[in-house]
Amino acid sequence: MTEPIITLTTDFGEDSPYVAAMKGVILGVNPQARIVDLSHHIPPQDVWQAAFFLGTSIPYFPRGVIHVVVVDPGVGSARALLHVEVGGHCLLAPDNGCWTELERSSPRPPAVRRLTEACYWRHPMSRTFHGRDILAPVAGWLSRGLLPEKLGPLVAEWIRLETPAPVVTADRIHGVVVFVDHYGNLISNIPGEAIATLAGRAVRITVGDEEVLRCVQTYAEAEAGTLVALVSSSGRLEVAVAQGSAARRLQAGVGTPVTVMVGK
Amino acid sequence: MTEPIITLTTDFGEDSPYVAAMKGVILGVNPQARIVDLSHHIPPQDVWQAAFFLGTSIPYFPRGVIHVVVVDPGVGSARALLHVEVGGHCLLAPDNGCWTELERSSPRPPAVRRLTEACYWRHPMSRTFHGRDILAPVAGWLSRGLLPEKLGPLVAEWIRLETPAPVVTADRIHGVVVFVDHYGNLISNIPGEAIATLAGRAVRITVGDEEVLRCVQTYAEAEAGTLVALVSSSGRLEVAVAQGSAARRLQAGVGTPVTVMVGK
Amino acid sequence: MTEPIITLTTDFGEDSPYVAAMKGVILGVNPQARIVDLSHHIPPQDVWQAAFFLGTSIPYFPRGVIHVVVVDPGVGSARALLHVEVGGHCLLAPDNGCWTELERSSPRPPAVRRLTEACYWRHPMSRTFHGRDILAPVAGWLSRGLLPEKLGPLVAEWIRLETPAPVVTADRIHGVVVFVDHYGNLISNIPGEAIATLAGRAVRITVGDEEVLRCVQTYAEAEAGTLVALVSSSGRLEVAVAQGSAARRLQAGVGTPVTVMVGK
Repeated sequence: MTEPIITLTTDFGEDSPYVAAMKGVILGVNPQARIVDLSHHIPPQDVWQAAFFLGTSIPYFPRGVIHVVVVDPGVGSARALLHVEVGGHCLLAPDNGCWTELERSSPRPPAVRRLTEACYWRHPMSRTFHGRDILAPVAGWLSRGLLPEKLGPLVAEWIRLETPAPVVTADRIHGVVVFVDHYGNLISNIPGEAIATLAGRAVRITVGDEEVLRCVQTYAEAEAGTLVALVSSSGRLEVAVAQGSAARRLQAGVGTPVTVMVGK
Repeated sequence: MTEPIITLTTDFGEDSPYVAAMKGVILGVNPQARIVDLSHHIPPQDVWQAAFFLGTSIPYFPRGVIHVVVVDPGVGSARALLHVEVGGHCLLAPDNGCWTELERSSPRPPAVRRLTEACYWRHPMSRTFHGRDILAPVAGWLSRGLLPEKLGPLVAEWIRLETPAPVVTADRIHGVVVFVDHYGNLISNIPGEAIATLAGRAVRITVGDEEVLRCVQTYAEAEAGTLVALVSSSGRLEVAVAQGSAARRLQAGVGTPVTVMVGK
Repeated sequence: MTEPIITLTTDFGEDSPYVAAMKGVILGVNPQARIVDLSHHIPPQDVWQAAFFLGTSIPYFPRGVIHVVVVDPGVGSARALLHVEVGGHCLLAPDNGCWTELERSSPRPPAVRRLTEACYWRHPMSRTFHGRDILAPVAGWLSRGLLPEKLGPLVAEWIRLETPAPVVTADRIHGVVVFVDHYGNLISNIPGEAIATLAGRAVRITVGDEEVLRCVQTYAEAEAGTLVALVSSSGRLEVAVAQGSAARRLQAGVGTPVTVMVGK
């Protein structure tokens, strides 16, 4: 039997009762459900960061896990709530593009349903907290074995985010920082393979106005404090300060340009 | 069989070993217990915020869950530790009023026991961490099926917090902000129904010195940046900035006055 | 049967996808594993704080739990990854001394293995995230009953941190603050018993330049705002401000000197 595992990814923070309320509703529907927190610190209402987060974490989970995502700036509007099967993973989320990265990396098209069957929702329903009143109980029912086709009809259109793609010219790759981790490492949108194709050629990498001094394979190769570039654990070009914070040193963040230049 | 679920709500933060120690003690008594974190970010020693938090999260849980609450400014004093059955929910907490809101909304009086049976406690016992040494092991024993009457005698008196109640006059409701969520939304102590009774009459709402421009049903109705009032997901009057932070914009927080005036 | 419980202690923070990725990998190997978060807020790359954290939390757990620790400034270097059995507890961690305090308090020598059997690792393996690619899957396999001897050979040498020890003279004990908790309480490296041996003699305690006014047994004995000394719940001399923050009041932190003087 599939273990009834439900993960939660939200922008609620840890200090408000919203996470707790969702857990209560899930356990009310299925006391056997095992709830796993992924993060409650997606920046408020930032669906782009949610997309990056899900794209670099959900692929590591086994099939059969139910992933509930509540980053929902459009709550209460006409935006749909979706059940998504993509790349072998199952998500419940608002229709706001937060699973864009997962769709992009999936070989097959997703199966997407609009949640319409209110008999699986919590009543009375609020207008501002569909995570608690719709997504949480639906996750509970799915974890009890309810078939997705009971939740609502398949739909053919949904929102895709225009996440920034790197621009490649003859001798340059122009990208941007798409995520800053807790250590201050700057993860770009430039795939590691793009760097690999330049192997053997002299390469310069800049972040904002600053030039990266060394390309390394691991942080530990460089002396503490050195600004280095490497392929991150998510497979992208990353700029880091060994045992320090590149974000602080360079005053860089999401959107800061990252450029790879061939030759000097 | 009831699933042995134990929730934790504390003011310990996530950076200290106190949460971990409690989890260890619980699992030492009952390795089958499933521990669910509600929040470890109640403001330090703030039993009022704990009361709000529990009042808006515990009601969503099913019966049979054991809720351990450790916000305990009086640890080591003569204050009692309690086992509380209120509104169908079971709590273990210091006698400091942190479950006031739950009692207020419960139709029946609670059953309250003072924890006196030290055979269910951890020994040697510290004088400053009863969460680890008393509440955690007692939760473990309850989750193994121990009957509450084994824990100590029923008591008839306990602390109730004087949480602020809104003042209603002929043409005004005076309330205050009682909680600020992670988004900066300001949740007041004015019940949503109080607003409903004014339906059809012109109403002005102020927070501190600032007038709220629009009453809406959901954040999404207003343009980004608009200061709006709505009924929150917990059923109270809430002031928010659509896709922004009302707390930051208005420099408002817990205790800031909120006034609803009829007519212009 | 031992419950397959796996705890996680990291310096990843809650805002990055690294914690989620590790959880996914663990559940991919063993969907029955129950994951318990201890903390993801060890200060970045601070193995000393990790040692204190583990020393004051792991001892409360029952045997059979698998503790995964990822504070790993040396990731990608030649540093080993270890399976450690110490004091009846099982840890998976980089060889950086993070379990020093546990070894110190254990009556028997630990059994330490170097992880070498790559068939239990995740492939392809990154060079910068061994928590996800080695420790997480190994924890998953252990939780399924794999014997530790399958993971790699016993080793006889490993890193021990030189954690500061208090210096005792005829009439003084010189120590330092080794941990600051979420309340701003200052926990020193001076054992509570050292104070006990001075019982009945007049004692003065200073933290930095400030003299502590009262020795108490619990915070609640002192008026709010008083600077007090007491034996902490972890058995060490602690300096606190009743219902306040000693760290903020004294501008003190890890490394601030704490001195106990006999006589006036």
